[in-house]
Amino acid sequence: MPPFIASPQTMHFAQALQLACGACLRDYQLTYETYGTLNAARDNAVLVCHALNASHHVAGSYEDQPKSEGWWDNMIGPGKSVDTNRFFVIGINNLGSCFGSTGPMHTNPDTGEIYGADFPVVTVEDWVNAQARLLEALGISQLAAVMGGSLGGMQALSWTLQYPERVRHAVVVASAPNLTAENIAFNEVARRAIVTDPDFYGGHFYRHGVIPKRGLRIARMIGHITYLSDDVMNEKFGRSLRAPTLPAARGSLPPAGADPARGGPAPDLREYLYSTQDVEFQIESYLRYQGDKFSDYFDANTYLLITRALDYFDPARAHGGSLAQALAAARARFLLVSFSTDWRFSPKRSREMVQALLDNRRQVAYAEIDAPHGHDAFLLDDARYMAVVRAYFDNIAKELA
Amino acid sequence: MPPFIASPQTMHFAQALQLACGACLRDYQLTYETYGTLNAARDNAVLVCHALNASHHVAGSYEDQPKSEGWWDNMIGPGKSVDTNRFFVIGINNLGSCFGSTGPMHTNPDTGEIYGADFPVVTVEDWVNAQARLLEALGISQLAAVMGGSLGGMQALSWTLQYPERVRHAVVVASAPNLTAENIAFNEVARRAIVTDPDFYGGHFYRHGVIPKRGLRIARMIGHITYLSDDVMNEKFGRSLRAPTLPAARGSLPPAGADPARGGPAPDLREYLYSTQDVEFQIESYLRYQGDKFSDYFDANTYLLITRALDYFDPARAHGGSLAQALAAARARFLLVSFSTDWRFSPKRSREMVQALLDNRRQVAYAEIDAPHGHDAFLLDDARYMAVVRAYFDNIAKELA
Repeated sequence: MPPFIASPQTMHFAQALQLACGACLRDYQLTYETYGTLNAARDNAVLVCHALNASHHVAGSYEDQPKSEGWWDNMIGPGKSVDTNRFFVIGINNLGSCFGSTGPMHTNPDTGEIYGADFPVVTVEDWVNAQARLLEALGISQLAAVMGGSLGGMQALSWTLQYPERVRHAVVVASAPNLTAENIAFNEVARRAIVTDPDFYGGHFYRHGVIPKRGLRIARMIGHITYLSDDVMNEKFGRSLRAPTLPAARGSLPPAGADPARGGPAPDLREYLYSTQDVEFQIESYLRYQGDKFSDYFDANTYLLITRALDYFDPARAHGGSLAQALAAARARFLLVSFSTDWRFSPKRSREMVQALLDNRRQVAYAEIDAPHGHDAFLLDDARYMAVVRAYFDNIAKELA
Repeated sequence: MPPFIASPQTMHFAQALQLACGACLRDYQLTYETYGTLNAARDNAVLVCHALNASHHVAGSYEDQPKSEGWWDNMIGPGKSVDTNRFFVIGINNLGSCFGSTGPMHTNPDTGEIYGADFPVVTVEDWVNAQARLLEALGISQLAAVMGGSLGGMQALSWTLQYPERVRHAVVVASAPNLTAENIAFNEVARRAIVTDPDFYGGHFYRHGVIPKRGLRIARMIGHITYLSDDVMNEKFGRSLRAPTLPAARGSLPPAGADPARGGPAPDLREYLYSTQDVEFQIESYLRYQGDKFSDYFDANTYLLITRALDYFDPARAHGGSLAQALAAARARFLLVSFSTDWRFSPKRSREMVQALLDNRRQVAYAEIDAPHGHDAFLLDDARYMAVVRAYFDNIAKELA
């Protein structure tokens, strides 16, 4: 079935939004997309929250852009696990992002200057408050479900704590109740790469007509390593050398054979180029390509803001560190999903949330999917994963008026 | 017992050294240290190979520098696991390094210019060949043992393949028979951070009187994350906030309590600063401090060369990918040690070497130490680890003339 056509919309808000950092956005806009139809009872709405570098474009494709599928198009659409023939699905771009909603690239109404580094720090809680306002404007007083993966899962969890009466179900995929020190560490290295790029200019690079691409490339390369598992990297790339189109081998070596110890591709027996700066291994060209692509479209200040929102999220914090106490406010029913090789948001972190919800006698379904792809698995097709989400939403559909 | 006094020596070599990359070093020097006394039979020599950022200064301290202990001083010295009262221990700084042996900061005799990026790519095999020449000059025709951790372990393994008759024992700690795609990926990100630093100048920054410190800082921060385990990072830092000496909290929050889910430090309940660029979490200041310190003393070109030597090491490569075939050349007896939480050079990689050696009916002792510290564990005090190495060297001592 060809992907359906999606079209982004933008809503303007003149009512000031108080942020956790103390600042106030007195004027802002949110870009969003909707798929399917809101039923007469207005009880079939599903809010999808995005992760670090995604957007409101969750499903479908844009007119005349066949390769513009939304980031969760494999999960959401007519007849899919989240069936837009039954649900009214909403994707929202978060504040501080760079895909339409008010962010660092926009003009600060108080100064008439582009925000840049002056855009206030936003938190998961701030995003949820902004999302709640959009839903009010759309006449949706209660969500059938809120769902998201990774950082999007944190927003789904926060919805159940900030607006417990307005969420019937929360689907939290490949997420965590807060970041570990290692998670924060990777975010910090990425931020330092951006902030110390001479083209960053303290976050006001727009004025100088430059982009801190070096920093963005490094940030993305680090991110990509943490999205994949060691296993899948060895399967996809192993120790294979640069593309065969590169300079031919200088000599000959023994015939190739499978590597029993490592698995993955048979060893590439062309001679090394012996260079510290040229691409030698395929994993290097893959990471460089991903870094270049990312630096062409993503905003550096947005990267800082969104990684910080990840660092700051920690609902247990206001409860003396007790996640069980923090989740006592939730009224929704939950589906949590984690992936066995996800070392960024490991199954252990999902089990902590399951336990804290069970401690509060909440209704929780939990699926730990055995998948090789690491954190990326939440975006990929996996029959068991898709079936679990489909079954859960089939049950939600039965509750609809 | 106070550390004994160590003093570095330098030996000059006029005989050209052919390198794997095709280049030739026609003139070079090696800086080294020795501890203990070579016995009359000249059969008690132990060569210690260093890892990425270490040097020939393995044990003891320098005169009037009480805080200058060698990097393996806890392991090697009078009465220690490797007892310098019985063994004659040699530490050598590798070619391409920045601590005395010929490297990128030295003058290229062919041009009269500083090598910089023109220093040829060196491999583990090249290092072993250079080390072998130093041993010849010292009149040592056979080593009682060669030992090293991480990249140093790769050198120890390579010794048994390049000079099988000249090594009686090899001690390979927290090492691997080659790097995984993920290992190479982390090295590549670190190299890109250095190479894309505007102060790198293609590797000829010395001429410009600058140092690519931004890149070196990022490289070191990435490295540090991979040296530690997620667990030990959570124990040491958790989500604790910046040092209490920083601006006081703006408000008050509920009383602290232990976090049952995460373990580690009790949650730091001071208010967030809400900044994307200032230090918020202690793990951030730790990493920044490590990065700054490293960028003050380590050479950028050396970092590229040594990470490449790691990437290139792969003895199975010349044998169609069969590690068992590759290790058939070894004649030494082996002790391998790995650490349970080391995700950089995991126990799995050590077991591959053990299996390949057993396939060749070699004598192998293997210890998998349950330690929380990740890859760093090979440098730290651990009673079981130290006891295993001590017992092995006690047995070696029994064979001495």
